[in-house]
Amino acid sequence: MTQTQSSLLTVVIGASGLALLFAIFLARWVMARSRGTPEMQKISDAIQQGAEAFLARQYKTIALLSVVVAALLGVGYGFFRNTTANDPVQDPRSFALYVTVSFLLGALSSGIAGYVGMWVSIRTNIRVAAAAMNSLNDALQTALRGGAVSGIFTVAMSLLGVGGLFAVVSALAPSGMDAAEWSKHVPFLIVGYGFGASFVALFAQLGGGIYTKAADVGADLVGKVEAGIPEDDPRNPAVIADLVGDNVGDCAGRGADLFESTAAENIGAMILGVLLYKSFGINGILFPLVIMALGLICSIVGVMVVRTREDADPMKALNAGYYVTAALVTAVFFFASRTLLQVADAPQAWWHFFFCGLIGIGTSIAFVFITQYYTEYRYRPVLGIAEASQTGPATNIIAGIAVGMESTVLPVITIGIAIVSSYTLGHTSGLVNDAGESIGGLFGTAVATMGMLGSAGYILAMDVFGPITDNAGGIVEMSRQPESVREKTDRLDSVGNTTKALTKGYAIGSAALAAFLLFSAYLDEVRNLTGQTLHVDLSKPVVFVAGLLGAMLVFWFSSLAMTAVRRAASSVITEVRRQFKERPGIMQGTEVPDYAACVDIVTIGALKAMVAPGALVVLFPIIVGLVFKRFTASGPLIGAESVAALLMVGTIAGILMAGFLNNGGGAWDNAKKYIESGHLKDDQGNVLGKGSDAHAAAVVGDNAKKYIETGAYGGKRSEAHKAAVVGDTVGDPFKDTAGPSLHVLVKLLSTITLVLAPLFI
Amino acid sequence: MTQTQSSLLTVVIGASGLALLFAIFLARWVMARSRGTPEMQKISDAIQQGAEAFLARQYKTIALLSVVVAALLGVGYGFFRNTTANDPVQDPRSFALYVTVSFLLGALSSGIAGYVGMWVSIRTNIRVAAAAMNSLNDALQTALRGGAVSGIFTVAMSLLGVGGLFAVVSALAPSGMDAAEWSKHVPFLIVGYGFGASFVALFAQLGGGIYTKAADVGADLVGKVEAGIPEDDPRNPAVIADLVGDNVGDCAGRGADLFESTAAENIGAMILGVLLYKSFGINGILFPLVIMALGLICSIVGVMVVRTREDADPMKALNAGYYVTAALVTAVFFFASRTLLQVADAPQAWWHFFFCGLIGIGTSIAFVFITQYYTEYRYRPVLGIAEASQTGPATNIIAGIAVGMESTVLPVITIGIAIVSSYTLGHTSGLVNDAGESIGGLFGTAVATMGMLGSAGYILAMDVFGPITDNAGGIVEMSRQPESVREKTDRLDSVGNTTKALTKGYAIGSAALAAFLLFSAYLDEVRNLTGQTLHVDLSKPVVFVAGLLGAMLVFWFSSLAMTAVRRAASSVITEVRRQFKERPGIMQGTEVPDYAACVDIVTIGALKAMVAPGALVVLFPIIVGLVFKRFTASGPLIGAESVAALLMVGTIAGILMAGFLNNGGGAWDNAKKYIESGHLKDDQGNVLGKGSDAHAAAVVGDNAKKYIETGAYGGKRSEAHKAAVVGDTVGDPFKDTAGPSLHVLVKLLSTITLVLAPLFI
Repeated sequence: MTQTQSSLLTVVIGASGLALLFAIFLARWVMARSRGTPEMQKISDAIQQGAEAFLARQYKTIALLSVVVAALLGVGYGFFRNTTANDPVQDPRSFALYVTVSFLLGALSSGIAGYVGMWVSIRTNIRVAAAAMNSLNDALQTALRGGAVSGIFTVAMSLLGVGGLFAVVSALAPSGMDAAEWSKHVPFLIVGYGFGASFVALFAQLGGGIYTKAADVGADLVGKVEAGIPEDDPRNPAVIADLVGDNVGDCAGRGADLFESTAAENIGAMILGVLLYKSFGINGILFPLVIMALGLICSIVGVMVVRTREDADPMKALNAGYYVTAALVTAVFFFASRTLLQVADAPQAWWHFFFCGLIGIGTSIAFVFITQYYTEYRYRPVLGIAEASQTGPATNIIAGIAVGMESTVLPVITIGIAIVSSYTLGHTSGLVNDAGESIGGLFGTAVATMGMLGSAGYILAMDVFGPITDNAGGIVEMSRQPESVREKTDRLDSVGNTTKALTKGYAIGSAALAAFLLFSAYLDEVRNLTGQTLHVDLSKPVVFVAGLLGAMLVFWFSSLAMTAVRRAASSVITEVRRQFKERPGIMQGTEVPDYAACVDIVTIGALKAMVAPGALVVLFPIIVGLVFKRFTASGPLIGAESVAALLMVGTIAGILMAGFLNNGGGAWDNAKKYIESGHLKDDQGNVLGKGSDAHAAAVVGDNAKKYIETGAYGGKRSEAHKAAVVGDTVGDPFKDTAGPSLHVLVKLLSTITLVLAPLFI
Repeated sequence: MTQTQSSLLTVVIGASGLALLFAIFLARWVMARSRGTPEMQKISDAIQQGAEAFLARQYKTIALLSVVVAALLGVGYGFFRNTTANDPVQDPRSFALYVTVSFLLGALSSGIAGYVGMWVSIRTNIRVAAAAMNSLNDALQTALRGGAVSGIFTVAMSLLGVGGLFAVVSALAPSGMDAAEWSKHVPFLIVGYGFGASFVALFAQLGGGIYTKAADVGADLVGKVEAGIPEDDPRNPAVIADLVGDNVGDCAGRGADLFESTAAENIGAMILGVLLYKSFGINGILFPLVIMALGLICSIVGVMVVRTREDADPMKALNAGYYVTAALVTAVFFFASRTLLQVADAPQAWWHFFFCGLIGIGTSIAFVFITQYYTEYRYRPVLGIAEASQTGPATNIIAGIAVGMESTVLPVITIGIAIVSSYTLGHTSGLVNDAGESIGGLFGTAVATMGMLGSAGYILAMDVFGPITDNAGGIVEMSRQPESVREKTDRLDSVGNTTKALTKGYAIGSAALAAFLLFSAYLDEVRNLTGQTLHVDLSKPVVFVAGLLGAMLVFWFSSLAMTAVRRAASSVITEVRRQFKERPGIMQGTEVPDYAACVDIVTIGALKAMVAPGALVVLFPIIVGLVFKRFTASGPLIGAESVAALLMVGTIAGILMAGFLNNGGGAWDNAKKYIESGHLKDDQGNVLGKGSDAHAAAVVGDNAKKYIETGAYGGKRSEAHKAAVVGDTVGDPFKDTAGPSLHVLVKLLSTITLVLAPLFI
């Protein structure tokens, strides 16, 4: 290991270690808080039990699948592949060992990140509920810091994993190769880490997403619609399953999702850094890790500055924390670019890449605004859906689908501008290869991705804030706390809905921006393996067909995910109906429903249902690659080229479909809330500002007496509201199962093709 | 003109002329039939009036837009473009003249084809209604032959247009160029014809599609849902507008759609034929036209053999006609390949291309089966939606969306196999260029497309059959004919729903297969203009962004189309509510509603609403091409390359989205019908076969007394049925506005880029 290398790795590993310690400190801070009343504890214990039982079973399944894949990888690489002169190590057995161990480590780390997220979240929810008995600020800080434990832990784990693996493998240079030369091979040996992480993330997000929405849809349809009891009513046997779902879907699932994003994108950026070795040396390879490590410290500061007044909009406080984080990340970029990327043969380069970082930061802020525009009820899209609800569920659905489709336009334009401008900045940075050709373009897009991911810790904290406050609201509701407490958790819950939508926008934006990074890594790998440059020429019929298949995969997968939710939900409905029928005491409130039975049914249903779509995503690109490599009439590398087309067009379709599903679902949800909130009046009969988030949020829930009869389009219980509930239910699997799973699908396609590239050649 | 050329053109123009004469004969046959009772005539006259008024206004708008585009084309080509050495003619003014005149001719012909389709359909509907008073066979034959007038006329027009234009331009060889050499330039001079045709088709399909579904959704929501009166009830003021919609959307719109398909694909295939001039001479260029011309004769035979027994399933009769047509087209292929494509330097070629034709014919048959599987209620998908309706509209919608998405899988695999295998057959045909490279691959895909389009005349006749029988049913219902007559038109109407779904499957399948043809024509044109071969390399960031924008265009356009329907429908609802309120006599049946007011409102609404999405599709690729050609750092032809990526990825997204929307919509429609039909019993109480189409169809309508209480999931008026009606309504703009407009969008993208290619270089 060289001197620079070890000092940079020290920064990375030091900062990540510090962040881990801080996460532990935060966790202790949260755990030290009050657990509220015994009734609250009873409910919270039931949620804990259900979530832990699901995760235990889910992880058993995933572990089994991972071991199978690892074995196939090891055998395939070690015994069935001919070594080429360009392989990073010449012994096939040790090549296999590197790939397999990286894969298993990635899978394991991803599992740990998801588990920790869930562990903290199921313990924070009750503390937020208890804090709400005290003050809004208390509840807000508890929820955000609980979320931050998960956010910071996840990103730190990812960095320690990639950085540590890099450090270890760097130390294992084969005899006769100098450290600098060897460090160029290392990123290719640890790509398995990203594949392992996204493999686990896919099943975690898919299983969790099916679980949460099957429970939610099932509980709503049989509770709200059939039995006419409010949401989160303790008489509903599926209510605990619904609350468990928030933890296993939103916390564990999203944690695994962002874990693999940072892992895969770090490795992709490092591979691009190898290309610039001549100019930047090891600095270029480790630059992404340094940015992420320092960004983590920025996120910690952002989390700690968040506080709110009792009568203020809590969203403003969270936004303030985000802007602090973004400003600090900007400073980090300036400092890191200037220090690491200032070189004599390209004196312009450092500030070109600094601007690329700014583009990434700007892109994430743009996504925040765009997502808010499409999913908040202050703006035209949600108001349009609410208006369309007046003519019934059909027009509500048409309007929501139209909004979802339209909502892809601005993000795509934003991403397009970000990719083209960061590429151009990189291209004109003055970096050239031996032939004098400009080679910095792709590194520019990589740096923009880093700019976007620099604040990942804070974003993830905001995201986990969502399910925590959702659960806190459920606990408060079920334990029948006084009005004033409910009002606080309802406000936080409404803010949590917004933060969840924002994170999805952020996740898909970063996936889109990073897509290029991972494609390039794949193309580089093919070049490394074959010595030939791969062009992905869509005008070849075979390549076009592969692209068509990639886009079709996105439609097929979405269909399977939504069908899985519908099937699992219908088994919940059957169970709840059975309990209501066999035990009439439940509806009268004299008998406690059998919550555990519902939890069990959803657990089994979700686990069974996640296998088919998951297997499809893993097997499909492999099959296409193996079949298409036979069409040699279309070119010597046709297998690799076809897989690249599948990956790229599949990514395009996945980005658009995920945007459509996420934003459509979010808009439906908030259109329903808008109608529920009605035109508000205060106790003296003065009309309160209809557009105000805080006020609208204050009445969400079952707080019906505050609504006036002539609320927006009739308020709750109106026909328009019924129509809006239909839209909201349709939106559930859109925004919380299929949409988020597509983020992972897009990245899994990249990592699987990266790891299996040797197969397709 | 050479000898072969003129004799082949004689075949083409002769066969097309013969077909035109036959269409006139058929039209006279239909017109000679009875127009039924005076009540029927009153209704039919109102429909005629409304349809003609709409088309007159729509065509005025379209004519205006076309003249603007033609002027821009003429000025752009004639004055703002530098002539290159590779231009087909050297004088820019005469180049401009060729392009502009072709464009206007294409636009005009498309308009005529749409008008004739509508003209015949609004006159056939009443004759079918009257024939149903006589016998099922009479009604079936009248409807199919009415449809055939439109189908045969449209395809013949397209052939006469392309063939005639080719003949005229061929005769205009500049002095000093021999006829054979000149004939290689001619296809590039007449590409404007395809653009003109697809330009008009886009607005015709879009305006008609918005009209028909705004009227349908509006009439249903306010009539069936609010006022509780049956479909097609004369008390509903929007009922005439609804019936008009079938004619202007399904007849005029689809006619224009298939007109431009055959025109654009013929020209694309001719351009590919130019590439093989060395081997095939003029035969290769004119082969597509010969196939289409002889295919037209096959379609005529197919139409004439259709007849049914009174108690048989009419769908079987229509299928029989289709199989006769397909068998005859197969024979034509054998004969034409052997005669025109048998050459000494590639003795294998003729049968290779014959097999390509078989692949095309097989693909269209496969599409028939796949579409039936996803949209008929004998199979799992529709049954699943019906089952999901038991838990309300939300699960019905989720199920329908999942079915729609899943329904893209088999068509994509079929298309993939067709493209790859026909390409391979062409590639191995033995045709080589001067450098000895195999060049027949793309011509293989072109011939497969021809195989699919060979039966276009028959398919279009089946399609127009749909709206004719739909209208006939409406006339019978509104004029309160006896049960036995209604039963016949209901059976035909149900078959018409199936044929409409089939045509959409066929249209999207042929669009997908032909996409490659048109891409290649574009790439050829770029090569002709610049002398360089264009590769569409998605791994360039700029090109990837252009592809992303292409896919986004599909989502944006779909959103606009669906929003347009929703807006126009809500103005219908307001008008109908106003009439019901101000004139209470309407509901009591003592006062005639003001049908014309509704017709006027939908007309204005649809025309206004079609402009934005139409303009988007036309302007978007132009803007991308002009902006992206500035990114010269990414390659010398980056403008043309970006536009190609937009076109190709946009086509992929368009094919998938159209399949999703068409099949999802069709499945919802039939799930509703399945529930409506209940478990049937006959008068003696015997249960009739539930799966039988004819019997299920027999009770669709408002024939409620025949339904038993415990029909499928409760039958009509059950909660499940209400849920299914929601799905059906959502499906309306899916399957009849956005979906079919996407077929045209895909082809318009191809023709616009083909015509404007010189701009992007």
